[in-house]
Amino acid sequence: MAVYTEVSDEELEAFVAEYAIGEVVSCKGIAEGVENSNYLLQTDQGNFILTLYEKRVNPDDLPFFIGLMEHLARQGLACPTPLAGRDGETLRTLCGRPAAIISFLQGLWPRKIHASQCAPLGRAMAEMHLAGLSYGKSRPNTLGQPDWRPLFELERQRADEVKPGLAQMLDAELAELEREWPKDLPSGIIHADLFPDNVFFKGEVVSGLIDFYFACTDFLAYDIAICLNAWCFEAGGDFNATKARNMLIGYQQVRPLTQAEFDALPMLCRGAAMRFLLTRLYDWLNTPTGAFVKRKDPLEYEKKLRFHAQVSGPGDYGLEMAAS
Amino acid sequence: MAVYTEVSDEELEAFVAEYAIGEVVSCKGIAEGVENSNYLLQTDQGNFILTLYEKRVNPDDLPFFIGLMEHLARQGLACPTPLAGRDGETLRTLCGRPAAIISFLQGLWPRKIHASQCAPLGRAMAEMHLAGLSYGKSRPNTLGQPDWRPLFELERQRADEVKPGLAQMLDAELAELEREWPKDLPSGIIHADLFPDNVFFKGEVVSGLIDFYFACTDFLAYDIAICLNAWCFEAGGDFNATKARNMLIGYQQVRPLTQAEFDALPMLCRGAAMRFLLTRLYDWLNTPTGAFVKRKDPLEYEKKLRFHAQVSGPGDYGLEMAAS
Repeated sequence: MAVYTEVSDEELEAFVAEYAIGEVVSCKGIAEGVENSNYLLQTDQGNFILTLYEKRVNPDDLPFFIGLMEHLARQGLACPTPLAGRDGETLRTLCGRPAAIISFLQGLWPRKIHASQCAPLGRAMAEMHLAGLSYGKSRPNTLGQPDWRPLFELERQRADEVKPGLAQMLDAELAELEREWPKDLPSGIIHADLFPDNVFFKGEVVSGLIDFYFACTDFLAYDIAICLNAWCFEAGGDFNATKARNMLIGYQQVRPLTQAEFDALPMLCRGAAMRFLLTRLYDWLNTPTGAFVKRKDPLEYEKKLRFHAQVSGPGDYGLEMAAS
Repeated sequence: MAVYTEVSDEELEAFVAEYAIGEVVSCKGIAEGVENSNYLLQTDQGNFILTLYEKRVNPDDLPFFIGLMEHLARQGLACPTPLAGRDGETLRTLCGRPAAIISFLQGLWPRKIHASQCAPLGRAMAEMHLAGLSYGKSRPNTLGQPDWRPLFELERQRADEVKPGLAQMLDAELAELEREWPKDLPSGIIHADLFPDNVFFKGEVVSGLIDFYFACTDFLAYDIAICLNAWCFEAGGDFNATKARNMLIGYQQVRPLTQAEFDALPMLCRGAAMRFLLTRLYDWLNTPTGAFVKRKDPLEYEKKLRFHAQVSGPGDYGLEMAAS
């Protein structure tokens, strides 16, 4: 799936020769991820990931992402690290695209989530948030709350093709998010896309976080809200409060939430559901049939949005109050 | 692309525990191949390929394929070898599908074919043919010459959607193939799908042949005809007689062609072009738009078929006569 660019042997060998990582033994496209072309590159010295950045990543943002991974790794976080070539550069060009060789991370991402994995997830996320505080750069969230309405306007005319009444529901929900969106929560670098396929485990231990290509500056608790959406609903649509509780407890073992963050959880969760609903809806309406990409169902997030809109308070996420 | 089945951690770890290959370190879907689900499985003892056989492979044929790979490997051919589990079995079940762990083969398949790779390809193919002669089993070619007309009848009504006049052209060509198809050429086990992505190289040396899931009993020279189609046309459609000549010379260094085989090359090439034209046309007409598979252009093989139909004799493939 995620191989948009075929790299010839000559180009590959010339590229790898820029690094002190030995000779190419094999190179296979990886069927995961949808934004970039990823190869599992094996040399006589080990395994690496070769990433070619395709057009959905803005090349101007790459130094931010690459620098962030380097910074987090230096802080001791398990995350892929871009390798420097013999010239000291981590980012170069392959087949006309920006490209990097990244360290290979062991572990498996959970196809089926166990409640016992949610506390380690919460701890790893909090550790990333703390480690990110000393990263000197920032990057605005280009899919943050102010961006949702303009995105919706591109979809308004056709939203009801997916579900009758959807446009009106989104319009009303966006108005409420504009009125109620929190203003002054603790901010920092968030991952912004910490779905299960971006978290590797060895058993119950997180062995690494990957795919930092949506990372940006935003409320730290918004990252938690994204994970509550991505990790704590069952396939049938039911919310699993045990998973949510475990995640919040694990997170607070490393970084306790302020009462304001805790109280904002329902609204942050509604916003996170809105963000993924809108981008999935956009892809759904704009991916040509016959295209080479599997479209994700936007209505999964419409159901999640409805759940968050009806909770009676943050206690519905499994904890009565923030850690004191 | 080629990941139809998602394997959960628990199922994977239980499956791998049946083998003496250590603990799972990582497992990534490979974006190559279209018939089966393939994973690159890394354990603390090395790299392996995990294959789940999907519905396009007949489970009854799997013992033939698995046994063939074992036989060829024992004969010294570089090809993937199925691993036996602790119970001695090479074929077992994972996620409700037949599945096997196969040895990992080093090398890269050529995205861009050099003429200098065609002699080693020819030699490797001939070595495979010789090694296959002592394999005790046979399997009819289910996409052989007698199967082309029934396949065409499924497409006749709609063929002209792809190109006006295509149905009539195929009908006439099939009639000629029925009249002229050779009867008594040397037979044995052929690969039947030896496209570039199934041949790994280290530089100019073939490091292995993979993907034996179309292997069957047929004329050995028909395998050469498949390769003349798959390896010796440029992207623009021109036939590269240097590549063909190299392939034929390389092949005959290991197994000289009989004069009858040599004389039959044009007709065998027409047949091979017909076979891939018909299966691609079938997929083209029957793959739902929006499906998760990239369709291959059938008309690429219509042009190749026209080339082979107009050659003046086998000498057009770069050699004047069979090795004497």
